[in-house]
Amino acid sequence: MKRGKVRSDMAWSTPTRIVVRGMDLCEEIIGKVDFGQMAFLEIFGRLPNAREERMFNAVLVILVEHGITPSTLATRLTYCGAPEAVQGAVAAGLLGLGSVFVGSLDNAARMLQEALPDPKAGADLDALAKAIVEAHRSRREIIPGIGHPFHKPIDPRTPKLFQVAKETGFSGRYVELMQKIGAEAERSYQRTLPVNVTGAMAAVASEFGLPWKVCRGLAVMGRAVGLVGHILEEIKMPMAEEIYFRLEEEASEEARRKG
Amino acid sequence: MKRGKVRSDMAWSTPTRIVVRGMDLCEEIIGKVDFGQMAFLEIFGRLPNAREERMFNAVLVILVEHGITPSTLATRLTYCGAPEAVQGAVAAGLLGLGSVFVGSLDNAARMLQEALPDPKAGADLDALAKAIVEAHRSRREIIPGIGHPFHKPIDPRTPKLFQVAKETGFSGRYVELMQKIGAEAERSYQRTLPVNVTGAMAAVASEFGLPWKVCRGLAVMGRAVGLVGHILEEIKMPMAEEIYFRLEEEASEEARRKG
Amino acid sequence: MKRGKVRSDMAWSTPTRIVVRGMDLCEEIIGKVDFGQMAFLEIFGRLPNAREERMFNAVLVILVEHGITPSTLATRLTYCGAPEAVQGAVAAGLLGLGSVFVGSLDNAARMLQEALPDPKAGADLDALAKAIVEAHRSRREIIPGIGHPFHKPIDPRTPKLFQVAKETGFSGRYVELMQKIGAEAERSYQRTLPVNVTGAMAAVASEFGLPWKVCRGLAVMGRAVGLVGHILEEIKMPMAEEIYFRLEEEASEEARRKG
Amino acid sequence: MKRGKVRSDMAWSTPTRIVVRGMDLCEEIIGKVDFGQMAFLEIFGRLPNAREERMFNAVLVILVEHGITPSTLATRLTYCGAPEAVQGAVAAGLLGLGSVFVGSLDNAARMLQEALPDPKAGADLDALAKAIVEAHRSRREIIPGIGHPFHKPIDPRTPKLFQVAKETGFSGRYVELMQKIGAEAERSYQRTLPVNVTGAMAAVASEFGLPWKVCRGLAVMGRAVGLVGHILEEIKMPMAEEIYFRLEEEASEEARRKG
Repeated sequence: MKRGKVRSDMAWSTPTRIVVRGMDLCEEIIGKVDFGQMAFLEIFGRLPNAREERMFNAVLVILVEHGITPSTLATRLTYCGAPEAVQGAVAAGLLGLGSVFVGSLDNAARMLQEALPDPKAGADLDALAKAIVEAHRSRREIIPGIGHPFHKPIDPRTPKLFQVAKETGFSGRYVELMQKIGAEAERSYQRTLPVNVTGAMAAVASEFGLPWKVCRGLAVMGRAVGLVGHILEEIKMPMAEEIYFRLEEEASEEARRKG
Repeated sequence: MKRGKVRSDMAWSTPTRIVVRGMDLCEEIIGKVDFGQMAFLEIFGRLPNAREERMFNAVLVILVEHGITPSTLATRLTYCGAPEAVQGAVAAGLLGLGSVFVGSLDNAARMLQEALPDPKAGADLDALAKAIVEAHRSRREIIPGIGHPFHKPIDPRTPKLFQVAKETGFSGRYVELMQKIGAEAERSYQRTLPVNVTGAMAAVASEFGLPWKVCRGLAVMGRAVGLVGHILEEIKMPMAEEIYFRLEEEASEEARRKG
Repeated sequence: MKRGKVRSDMAWSTPTRIVVRGMDLCEEIIGKVDFGQMAFLEIFGRLPNAREERMFNAVLVILVEHGITPSTLATRLTYCGAPEAVQGAVAAGLLGLGSVFVGSLDNAARMLQEALPDPKAGADLDALAKAIVEAHRSRREIIPGIGHPFHKPIDPRTPKLFQVAKETGFSGRYVELMQKIGAEAERSYQRTLPVNVTGAMAAVASEFGLPWKVCRGLAVMGRAVGLVGHILEEIKMPMAEEIYFRLEEEASEEARRKG
Repeated sequence: MKRGKVRSDMAWSTPTRIVVRGMDLCEEIIGKVDFGQMAFLEIFGRLPNAREERMFNAVLVILVEHGITPSTLATRLTYCGAPEAVQGAVAAGLLGLGSVFVGSLDNAARMLQEALPDPKAGADLDALAKAIVEAHRSRREIIPGIGHPFHKPIDPRTPKLFQVAKETGFSGRYVELMQKIGAEAERSYQRTLPVNVTGAMAAVASEFGLPWKVCRGLAVMGRAVGLVGHILEEIKMPMAEEIYFRLEEEASEEARRKG
């Protein structure tokens, strides 16, 4: 039984031609469209204008690389067991991009988009920010997109991303609401709780009209690039085996003693 | 016991600063470096010049999107079971980038780099191409990077990538050797076996000095971007559940009949 | 700086000996301990008694196989691109075991364990069930572990698992609470909402004292076994390529028409 | 266009019944079939007899747990970033089961099965072993399934698995050939090269008639169980964050110094 139609408009091809989002891959993309424009094309179905391009690239590059993290360690350790499957090592590193490290990106975007379903409607942002902070506080839930355990007092990426947003015309209602939420939270909790990088990315992604459900994908695209970088460094300057030997020895000390 | 030093030069950070490959993320990258340049920075440790940038971007965009494939289907089916974990859906799609679809990229790069360890040395490329084709033929092994089951008579991406290589000064010894291998294979097997997209990518990646072990990573980076595009389309225009229902019904027909 | 100790009691080894959970792998496990007992040993750190063994095995086998599903399709499609990496094909299939298909296992276990932190305390289960149903209803949240879109009027696995629980002495307070929640939900919503398989598994896992955070792992262990079965069938009777060709053609129809 | 039929005989279900490999899940499996038998059912399509059961279980349990390894570390590091997605943490750990750690299982099984396509035919095993060792030696390739970097002089799991094989009637021609290959390699290379655990598993899997392409799956099933054990220990006694902090600090020392 065929219940519905299966349809995708992403691309189609013939033996001699590949059409991606309506553009001819060979004639219009290769050598003409760069990687950031291509990512935009994939997400929005058209090429960006100059303002969009600068803003979107800023979002894409921001989480590519943060040195040795659980994610890059997972990639390196996986590579050391399966060097023939680079795709698996990258996949392993991506799998740690969950609720602890980038999940707040989705959550913050959801919070913003549900509070402000139509950014053009004249909502009272101060009232919204207050209501959001109070609602989270009463449920004892963490407000996504504010505060950072390490980058203190403020996450240095946020002002930079918001500055680019201003310069490119993307500093709209979602950015404003996110900032007001941070300010309101600081007032309410009486501690420094500025917008962090995922909060800033969530606000800008919302300005682009990107549904919150897919916002984490921006981090995933960027990190995939970074993880390939780590694989190359692992080839040239390996650490995975050393990590394994050291940790195996230390971790099993107690069990060995008991025999 | 500490056997060796663990070291990574990819990035380091302080609470107020993040330094990626020696560049200040906030001051020198966000809003200034685009996604393609960032990928180059991750791989080569420095920003590209204009020629390198155009060539590298051409390689990055070429495999981002090819419509409905086993890889994009795996992502969509995974997303339908775990929509809260976009990273997992992308990972699932990447895992299919193995020996059948992009593995020939590594294999072709290995073939080229082992044949021509120093591209500046005056090797006889005709002799090398002949020896390579003969060696594969005698072992009854497929020559990586030539021929394509669908894109016939020639993979349209190859001439385009090689044209960009010519225009940017990347049409060097590896590109020449790859082309000679294709020509020699056609002569030897008496059928059309032109260089395919992974052969072309392998040749250009070798011109960049990229070790063959990590060449598949170029496809992985690109495809990660495309898979996020498919997740967004799946949200807007889902197909996974329909596919599941249809195939479950058809596949189990025989077993149901037997009862 | 060493901030804390890294410790694991799972296993340790010398060149001539491997000790798993305090047992000698070669002398006490291989040929003596079966796969179900081994899973119990991994989770609980000791071998099960006969009652525990029967109950635990019932939980392990219940989700191993459900035919063609998004999860098994993802494994088969991934295998067709990377047959050299069976681990990746299994991983791809596991990645779909998220909120839609087995997430309710964690959620139901959490609900039970938070409502009844000490199963031996004389809590009023009727009152708890009523409060839980009301709380979910007022927040318009789905109650995890009850109802099933396909297995109607009741999920046939539930009475069977609960029967084994009765026979093995595992039909305790968590099982009772789960059943009362189902009954209360039926009363409150005025429709058939019996406990489903993940609700039943969550109740039994709670009887075993398994923390809710890891309950999904029971499904993951079982499904890993099932996915290897599907890979073997895919080798003998492939469907992935056929699926790909069919769906690619159908999905791109519209885009092809537009040209 | 429908090119071929999609068919799977693994399972089918109705709202009130689930049939797995021809057996009724609720009536014939839950509470009656244990996890090891279930794995056998998935792979061979029928329940094992007592001899098969003991042998198959021995193969399944042997690689479940080896303490802290790159694979278990990848799972723990992934879990620390995405604790809500246990399936992703297990998947990450499985992805490292590649050519370095368990790939020799496939390779050894392939070597045995290609040398001895019909184990009942009266092949000269001494001649085969000699030819295999010589062929590998002349191509300077490692012989899969013999020698071990850590478990010396002999991998203690091998004699145990072969003993169970003897006791259960599985010590057939493949086991004999594998042992002869080890002995011949020792003679040829003049060093201790006894059969290792993957060689022993490959031989036994071949006795079961399992195609070499899926032999790695035996390790994957077992390890999936072990990885859930590590997640539970990580919840109770975490190490991932400590590992991350330590390694980040040590790894970035040099880059920090350069500024």
